[in-house]
Amino acid sequence: MAVTIVVFAFLASTISTLAEKVTLNDVLFSGGYEFIDLTHPYDNNTVYWPGHQKFTFTKKIENIQEDKSWYAAKEFSAAEHGGTHLDAPYHFLQTGDYVGDIPLEKLIVPLIIVDVSSIANDDANFVLYKHHLDYLLNYNSGQPCILIFKFGWSKYFHDRNKYLGIGIDQKSLNFPGLSVEVAQWITTSYKNVVGIGVDVASVDPGSVKELAVHKILSRAGLYNMENVKLDRAIPDHGCTALVMPMKIAAGTGAPLRLVAICPKPKPDNF
Amino acid sequence: MAVTIVVFAFLASTISTLAEKVTLNDVLFSGGYEFIDLTHPYDNNTVYWPGHQKFTFTKKIENIQEDKSWYAAKEFSAAEHGGTHLDAPYHFLQTGDYVGDIPLEKLIVPLIIVDVSSIANDDANFVLYKHHLDYLLNYNSGQPCILIFKFGWSKYFHDRNKYLGIGIDQKSLNFPGLSVEVAQWITTSYKNVVGIGVDVASVDPGSVKELAVHKILSRAGLYNMENVKLDRAIPDHGCTALVMPMKIAAGTGAPLRLVAICPKPKPDNF
Repeated sequence: MAVTIVVFAFLASTISTLAEKVTLNDVLFSGGYEFIDLTHPYDNNTVYWPGHQKFTFTKKIENIQEDKSWYAAKEFSAAEHGGTHLDAPYHFLQTGDYVGDIPLEKLIVPLIIVDVSSIANDDANFVLYKHHLDYLLNYNSGQPCILIFKFGWSKYFHDRNKYLGIGIDQKSLNFPGLSVEVAQWITTSYKNVVGIGVDVASVDPGSVKELAVHKILSRAGLYNMENVKLDRAIPDHGCTALVMPMKIAAGTGAPLRLVAICPKPKPDNF
Repeated sequence: MAVTIVVFAFLASTISTLAEKVTLNDVLFSGGYEFIDLTHPYDNNTVYWPGHQKFTFTKKIENIQEDKSWYAAKEFSAAEHGGTHLDAPYHFLQTGDYVGDIPLEKLIVPLIIVDVSSIANDDANFVLYKHHLDYLLNYNSGQPCILIFKFGWSKYFHDRNKYLGIGIDQKSLNFPGLSVEVAQWITTSYKNVVGIGVDVASVDPGSVKELAVHKILSRAGLYNMENVKLDRAIPDHGCTALVMPMKIAAGTGAPLRLVAICPKPKPDNF
């Protein structure tokens, strides 16, 4: 009996020590995780909102120097809100945080993917309501996290007209988005959610003029991630989001490097 | 005896299960880690290399709309190589990777800080040689990692003339950097190092004209991180680096969001 007690005490102590000694690098580089880039690249084809400055190289030096060595350096112009980017709360709230104010504790957080692409079913008029989400958000743990909604739109990113749903009038837009109902529900019932992402150009549906979803989310202190690249399989929970905007101090928004660190799928059992 | 064997088998199995079940989010959000931003913000005072386009807002909309709601959006111009930024291998090697080509496996890696600030001792003429590093690099594990050298220069970032060591001629520069010897040593003896960072404006010392360190590092496939913000205590090993450049597809460099995730210091024993 005494031997058993000693052995179990040793067991408990070993497990406790192990849990303390498992470091972040041990877990992260164990081979069990993969890095998934949720960022569209910046180039001539990057989608911007109509009327906004597109990503453009304004100067390019690319040449062979006198000593035969290579030297290349460029300069660029861009609107804050194009490609995969972040909207700071200040975008729609005068007293809201600039990009540079958002604390890292809101930018490195668990990631929940809400895949509604089969419900949206390629319909540019699709609007997400609360009843679509009845079965979702099961993985909300109560700690700070972000939600990214997948409408299945990243496959159109290469075709700006289709992606934005630009009308014959060359002015109107049409793509899926969130309803006011969903924005209000999240900001009142899920106060641990610090940011909302979408794989379309706006959290508001493309056809609306009054950007009510932006306003509701800004007023609640959330940031948005728009034009998220979701073109491959990704677990709906268990990933960690790295939300890394260019640190524009007084930015209303900024180009965003968005990466998910996800557990690798387990091999099938044979 | 049989009981002991069973208990030890149970012990081994429990430990193995525990190690598998400790998820990244469990460890990362356990309260044992902190996030340290190694990024200077982009604003009017951000340090750029002489002659390069500084970070500038080219358009600012910030006003109250007809419906009394707030709307703000901006556009900006900047050189790729200013503020806290990344140099892609293509900067000095025609066949090198663009920013957009660098795989995430080289951008999320263990971080080793090499603090030589007490040796540099505020001397703008300081050049780092191999003999300064005899006692260093103990934490090199052989897996992909980055090294960031701390010369103690971030405290001058607010004063561009002092930070760059701009001479009376308004042309010459003077700040610490790496020697050719150190660049060759790292790229030949530590092939697991994928990137080099410095808390000054260049990996080459400010006074040199021929940027040999840049060339050696580019040719070996390494990226550089320049103007890293190192103005607070940070562990020299055990941190994870998030090296998150703006994803400029054909970038020779890019604004960089650089964050370290570090184990929190243990409270002192009383």
